[in-house]
Amino acid sequence: MILELADIRIQPGRQAAFDAAIVEGVETVISKAKGFRGFKVNKGVESPERYVLMIFWETLENHTVDFRQSPAFQQWRALVGGYFAAPPAVEHFTLLAKSA
Amino acid sequence: MILELADIRIQPGRQAAFDAAIVEGVETVISKAKGFRGFKVNKGVESPERYVLMIFWETLENHTVDFRQSPAFQQWRALVGGYFAAPPAVEHFTLLAKSA
Repeated sequence: MILELADIRIQPGRQAAFDAAIVEGVETVISKAKGFRGFKVNKGVESPERYVLMIFWETLENHTVDFRQSPAFQQWRALVGGYFAAPPAVEHFTLLAKSA
Repeated sequence: MILELADIRIQPGRQAAFDAAIVEGVETVISKAKGFRGFKVNKGVESPERYVLMIFWETLENHTVDFRQSPAFQQWRALVGGYFAAPPAVEHFTLLAKSA
């Protein structure tokens, strides 16, 4: 399992619309992708324009190849890209440890 | 529930020792704190010196006041601070949505 962590900054004042758009995008597009295993959408407390999207993938390539090179990536970006203040910072992680 | 997200960069080549130190610090210090509800330690794929520590707290103040102003914060920093390449970037988040 691989965690994709997307650090997103949106344009000021558009939180309510983006809240709906990102949930729609994950639920209707990303969650249908090959290797998708789950997600969380987190909203910033100190930085109200910051969102951290966590997507769990079966393998790294399910995201970087299968998803990004599919038409679904463009569908996702069409839903959420208009809100971005800058390109999201996206990296991947493995789980070292967690609570029981 | 509040998510603390700590974005940590360590000194190059010290991953194995830091892996042990961060797990020890979370399990022996942070997990004993008031309001602690769980944790994950994530290691960077693209950035091998990057770790993202996720701590779940009952309230924001359980972290920012109760923990940071307790002796436990100094115990935690004594275990992990020597590995940091820079001060960690720490912010808090609320959960907007997640998969079932």
